[in-house]
Amino acid sequence: MHKVIFDTDPGVDDAMALLFLERHPDIELLGITTAFGNASIETTTRNALYLKQQWGLTAPVSRGSSEQFDPGRKPHPFPAHIHGDDGLGNIGVPDVIDLPLDPRPAHQFIIDTVMANPGEVALVAVGRMTNLANALKAAPEIAGLVREVIIMGGAVDVPGNVTPAAEANIHGDPEAADHVMTAPWKVVVVGLDVTLKTTMSRMELAGLAKQGGAAVELLDRLSQFYIDFYDGEVKDSMVVHDTCACVYLVARELFTTRSGPVRVLTTGIGEGKTLQKPDGHRFGPSEWDGKPSQLVCTDVRADALMALVKKTLVRQ
Amino acid sequence: MHKVIFDTDPGVDDAMALLFLERHPDIELLGITTAFGNASIETTTRNALYLKQQWGLTAPVSRGSSEQFDPGRKPHPFPAHIHGDDGLGNIGVPDVIDLPLDPRPAHQFIIDTVMANPGEVALVAVGRMTNLANALKAAPEIAGLVREVIIMGGAVDVPGNVTPAAEANIHGDPEAADHVMTAPWKVVVVGLDVTLKTTMSRMELAGLAKQGGAAVELLDRLSQFYIDFYDGEVKDSMVVHDTCACVYLVARELFTTRSGPVRVLTTGIGEGKTLQKPDGHRFGPSEWDGKPSQLVCTDVRADALMALVKKTLVRQ
Repeated sequence: MHKVIFDTDPGVDDAMALLFLERHPDIELLGITTAFGNASIETTTRNALYLKQQWGLTAPVSRGSSEQFDPGRKPHPFPAHIHGDDGLGNIGVPDVIDLPLDPRPAHQFIIDTVMANPGEVALVAVGRMTNLANALKAAPEIAGLVREVIIMGGAVDVPGNVTPAAEANIHGDPEAADHVMTAPWKVVVVGLDVTLKTTMSRMELAGLAKQGGAAVELLDRLSQFYIDFYDGEVKDSMVVHDTCACVYLVARELFTTRSGPVRVLTTGIGEGKTLQKPDGHRFGPSEWDGKPSQLVCTDVRADALMALVKKTLVRQ
Repeated sequence: MHKVIFDTDPGVDDAMALLFLERHPDIELLGITTAFGNASIETTTRNALYLKQQWGLTAPVSRGSSEQFDPGRKPHPFPAHIHGDDGLGNIGVPDVIDLPLDPRPAHQFIIDTVMANPGEVALVAVGRMTNLANALKAAPEIAGLVREVIIMGGAVDVPGNVTPAAEANIHGDPEAADHVMTAPWKVVVVGLDVTLKTTMSRMELAGLAKQGGAAVELLDRLSQFYIDFYDGEVKDSMVVHDTCACVYLVARELFTTRSGPVRVLTTGIGEGKTLQKPDGHRFGPSEWDGKPSQLVCTDVRADALMALVKKTLVRQ
């Protein structure tokens, strides 16, 4: 069993990823920690509780930070045009969900859970990396106790999506991302280099909804607004960003990876750009020297990945 | 006929590019302007005169700037480990070459020559872009009079070679490169994305030397040190960086290009990184907005390119 803490900002594609984690037989979801990004921390936390309630999840939900790792950083607006004003495609999520939150802040939940399961927990982080960075700052020793960190974020050999340089999860908190990438733990970067290759059409999702019961019906409903947004790039389909990071956990053989230290640009017009120093290449001295090698996913067998996603989402 | 000013810092691969320009029947070399980068401006200018003398070139040589576009920028050391202490593979170039220089500084030579041939001159720049930026600064109107600017430089979708972010020609004068990329003229970026795919082996070059006379024999001799350097990356071969930009001039059909504004990062750990905003993609507001679209070469038919290079070098 893969023990997982899912750090997420639901978020439409986050919702699919969460259902994938819940329904995959080899994954044990230890907790859901919320990040801000696709919407405010209030909204993403409410949405996590809503999905927990609707899907009958048992994992606790712990609320994450409401400010970036560098508190001096100016906040960015939330992408309501992609995820809706409610963060879940404007389906009318109730304002308040009558379920308790874990009493601890997300970074403390992460620290405690990792300490209690040394060497066993994978952190799958599909929003800004604020909570992970805060956890590392408060308890640097967890780096040696986490099994691996799989992030959806970054654009290494391809253009970004917020700016030509930066992917949204990195752009939203670049100092946090750089802190996470350069820590002495194993990070796998599942970024736009691969996620843009994984799409699900409106028709495919509707077909899954017929087989997968009420849970997939909800997923189908909340994804329509997001599919409308992506229609300009992939015809009548959605890009399955966040689920890709979850698939890595159980089917890493589908990914091509490149090893080397990764840094995030935190200043200038390239702010939020993710750059790797591939192992084995010669370079002059640089700020990548001495940082741990991480894995960047550079390609994926998209058809096989999507087949696994579909099969898993309709398991009951 | 393609009228060309060749802005160059010879430099071993510069020497091959210069011989290609001289020997291609459809190219008229109007002038050679020197840049610093592979070696000091004194050395690269002396080397340009040496090659002019050895190869009987008629094009004038004009000496370029000895300092970066932003005079406050700290100079980088010259890569003597790649091009040799003399910039031409330590073959023992005489200290002084008894040939006159054009009396004008390189940027003025560029301005005057472009003005005298409106709409006809291609600038092929294979070193730092200092002279081009100085020419634009002194006479911005030349942007509308140059046919096109073809540069060897940059690493757009691939890692750099000086740092994980930056290619050497851009890294050496990032402000100049950004000024050139964002000016209202047509720039074609022939960077590491394609040049790393074009190699010539020691044996192939020796074969050409037997067919191409004294000029190619000299090229063969001065390239040995450079081939030794590249041997770690491409077995017993050299990467043909600069000649690629010259081939674009006469055989652009060999290249795959992508259109969109290009910016250069001038601050932080990513200094010298070249990033494109591909046309037709959606992004939030960024510092690429409103800048002219340029062409970035993303792929090349390397075998066909190398066949053309070999055929051209041995023409007499």
